[in-house]
Amino acid sequence: MIKERVCIAGLGLMGGSMALALKLAHRMALRPFPLHLTLIDRDPQTLDAAKRLGDVVTDDFADGVRDCDLLILCTPVRTIVSLLQQLPNVHEKGCLVIDLGSSKLDIVQAMEALPSRFGAIGGHPMCGRETAGFRAATPDLYRHKNFVLCPNGRTTPIMTQQANILLDLIGAKPLALQAKFHDQMVAAISHLPYVVSAALIRTVAGLNNDLIWSLSASGFRDTSRISGTDATMMMDILLTNKTAVLTQIDTYQNHINDLKRLLEAEDEEGIRYWLSQSQAGYETYKRKKPN
Amino acid sequence: MIKERVCIAGLGLMGGSMALALKLAHRMALRPFPLHLTLIDRDPQTLDAAKRLGDVVTDDFADGVRDCDLLILCTPVRTIVSLLQQLPNVHEKGCLVIDLGSSKLDIVQAMEALPSRFGAIGGHPMCGRETAGFRAATPDLYRHKNFVLCPNGRTTPIMTQQANILLDLIGAKPLALQAKFHDQMVAAISHLPYVVSAALIRTVAGLNNDLIWSLSASGFRDTSRISGTDATMMMDILLTNKTAVLTQIDTYQNHINDLKRLLEAEDEEGIRYWLSQSQAGYETYKRKKPN
Repeated sequence: MIKERVCIAGLGLMGGSMALALKLAHRMALRPFPLHLTLIDRDPQTLDAAKRLGDVVTDDFADGVRDCDLLILCTPVRTIVSLLQQLPNVHEKGCLVIDLGSSKLDIVQAMEALPSRFGAIGGHPMCGRETAGFRAATPDLYRHKNFVLCPNGRTTPIMTQQANILLDLIGAKPLALQAKFHDQMVAAISHLPYVVSAALIRTVAGLNNDLIWSLSASGFRDTSRISGTDATMMMDILLTNKTAVLTQIDTYQNHINDLKRLLEAEDEEGIRYWLSQSQAGYETYKRKKPN
Repeated sequence: MIKERVCIAGLGLMGGSMALALKLAHRMALRPFPLHLTLIDRDPQTLDAAKRLGDVVTDDFADGVRDCDLLILCTPVRTIVSLLQQLPNVHEKGCLVIDLGSSKLDIVQAMEALPSRFGAIGGHPMCGRETAGFRAATPDLYRHKNFVLCPNGRTTPIMTQQANILLDLIGAKPLALQAKFHDQMVAAISHLPYVVSAALIRTVAGLNNDLIWSLSASGFRDTSRISGTDATMMMDILLTNKTAVLTQIDTYQNHINDLKRLLEAEDEEGIRYWLSQSQAGYETYKRKKPN
């Protein structure tokens, strides 16, 4: 059974969806379980909207976490790190902590610095949306989605058990990975796609030609979609996963430079190989992960 | 009324969808009109599958076009140019010609070289799919989509009229543009997104790690989707719109380089500005073109 006193800090898309998913699981449970939900956010409007979901809503982190058994940190990454550093001063008896940050190494290090009265595990649900904020939250955001768990020096057996119970309640699939390996992988599969998409929208918007939008079709729609991702969240991700992201950007730019050179030289055979290899890459992806 | 003897050359996704859309319009017409459809393709399997659609199916261009009144060229761009060059030798009485190529300058120039017994207009429907071929064709591909028309020295009033009738039958919205301007715009809004998406899939596939696909979420799915575009079609587009595409790639690379520099320097203010400008660009797009 999940711990009774659950506290969610940060009610954006991820935290809001977590609160909704937990409440839904609580209401729909075949075997009822007690749940006391405390919701923390800095934004007064969000807190107001969250009143119907939480037993307690507050903008005071110290006040909100004080009595909780399970703390779910859903803020941008660097705020998660900062809250983990504050936690020992505001939670005397200790609790279990999981987070939803998109880069894990800094967070896991902050978890390992917690006193032994805390249990902690890193978390990263592989899902999202281009619209941020509590209003975009939905109880099925995590359903059938992979949810990375990063065990570390603070991961007690009870923490692992509670993480699995939580994921089960929200319908997510656990996938255990080391933090460093996770950060390298998501630099390519998640953070690079953002950079790619954002640079694309900048290029098109920079033409300052209103007509161009009416020429856009589904290809542009999809390729540009995640450029709408929340800037603050992205900032923390890029800064806390800087090295891995820069490595992937370099590889990515090399591929574009290859095509540029081939195109400048009108090297048909080379272009054909570049294009068909790309098409083959896409086919591999669709085979390995049919959506 | 549309000309009776219509010939479609090239039965891939675009040509196949054109044939299906025309047949559907013909069957559903409140005011019946005569339609004799000749379908041309090089692939025996495609021709076999197209038999139920066409009154005549053939792999011989000269034979197929000989008696047509309206010719719709749906092959890759450089093949369209080559077929336009062959046309005067195989069509004695002359006909009307429209095409569906994704770059227009080379095609419009080939149209202008046609003898005066031909009328011609460039066409580019702003729609597509990541799956190529006749099997992916669908009668509603063009419905409610913008369809660029590029008038040129060979565009007679009857050609313009027939183009509008054709677009009306398949449900597309006409948008008249000069070929050169069209090519510059689609380099940014259509051809660059392909390059962006293909370089992304290459980067991820190049990691040769099967686990990475299970970490992929909807962001990667959408950003990588058009990397599956047919390589032959893309080859012709890139080669016939080389200068405009290279210009957009340069601007795009500059945006990525800016972010790289800011990230290397951990320039928070600069990164925040880059990110929020990108988010603002996406909001402009969604405002100008709500999908």
